[in-house]
Amino acid sequence: MEIKVLKNILSANDQIAERNRGLLDKNNVFTVNIMSSPGAGKTSLILETLKRLKGKTRIGVIEGDVSSSMDAEAVGKEGVPVIQINTGGGCHLDANMVQNALDNIPLPDIDLLFIENVGNLICPAGFALGGHKRAIVSSVPEGDDKPFKYPLMFHEADIVLLNKIDLLPYVKFDLKAFSQAIRSINEKLEIIPISCTTGQGIGEWVSWLRAQMNQR
Amino acid sequence: MEIKVLKNILSANDQIAERNRGLLDKNNVFTVNIMSSPGAGKTSLILETLKRLKGKTRIGVIEGDVSSSMDAEAVGKEGVPVIQINTGGGCHLDANMVQNALDNIPLPDIDLLFIENVGNLICPAGFALGGHKRAIVSSVPEGDDKPFKYPLMFHEADIVLLNKIDLLPYVKFDLKAFSQAIRSINEKLEIIPISCTTGQGIGEWVSWLRAQMNQR
Repeated sequence: MEIKVLKNILSANDQIAERNRGLLDKNNVFTVNIMSSPGAGKTSLILETLKRLKGKTRIGVIEGDVSSSMDAEAVGKEGVPVIQINTGGGCHLDANMVQNALDNIPLPDIDLLFIENVGNLICPAGFALGGHKRAIVSSVPEGDDKPFKYPLMFHEADIVLLNKIDLLPYVKFDLKAFSQAIRSINEKLEIIPISCTTGQGIGEWVSWLRAQMNQR
Repeated sequence: MEIKVLKNILSANDQIAERNRGLLDKNNVFTVNIMSSPGAGKTSLILETLKRLKGKTRIGVIEGDVSSSMDAEAVGKEGVPVIQINTGGGCHLDANMVQNALDNIPLPDIDLLFIENVGNLICPAGFALGGHKRAIVSSVPEGDDKPFKYPLMFHEADIVLLNKIDLLPYVKFDLKAFSQAIRSINEKLEIIPISCTTGQGIGEWVSWLRAQMNQR
């Protein structure tokens, strides 16, 4: 009797994430998993991006929350396809939840998909969803020590949007220390300082998104 | 043969939490589990409290972090007993971690113990540690919708310190909406607006702590 040797078996989550990736690629949907602390500004970033890309790029949004649907309602008002995932207490999205959402969003009509993860700097970092890039929204009032305190999240990400820079005059935050902390964890991580209140840096973020989409 | 029926079996975590509580009570150590988002100001609150109670109340601190020890070092400089728990990636403290910390802190020399949980508005809410009260540090820049988005945390807590109220002039935050959101989830939850930068409200928090200790 021949014994089958199975190599490189992916975890159930990674296997579903790979399937999600295949589906997104087939439909040519560039997908960004957006992660942050509670209240750092994930939804605000998505709303600002929608405004800038309206009529230019077809955007869809998957909103992850423990139990509410406030963010999905805010995004839905902008007239883009949006699906709410409620984790029912769960502290992160997983690939299976995203697979279910993908079944309910019109992928052929979308070029750019944002997945807003649950507000949490720890657990979401450990779960692949199938997207192409991972963005962290960090925010000035949280303090410049966050990369040291939540290293996995910063290690796994492709870009950091440092939000609420309009508050720099009012809080203790050393931008150089923050950048150095990030460099010590992840040399390749891009950092764009932004403010969803003043609009500063949003253009640079949109250019980054466009460059990513054009490279594909 | 008689069949034993075991009733009201606690989870392993709750069982250890009860043991922790017994040890704390035996040593007359009033213990507060402090929870919040990353960067809301748990350590700043502890440092401000230490300043106010220096020479009056003997304080100890257990610091919970994913991997760093920056907070424990900051607290240690104030000359109080401090134990660092690194969860090694874990997203919350549990009773067993606290039990280990309690074995290493001089309980007979402490009247008030702060347990600073890992910065996370979701997972820590589900794990009893054995302390007497649960405090949330919420912060103005996080937004007034947090009680709706992280209801379990607000449901389980005894007091909310709304920190960074010095930033109220610079961000969108409706104090009334925040209070109403809390009331809808937990009628008994006390709310004290504070600023660890200006010192506002810290006196009221210290009075609350003293009243709790005197009631015991």
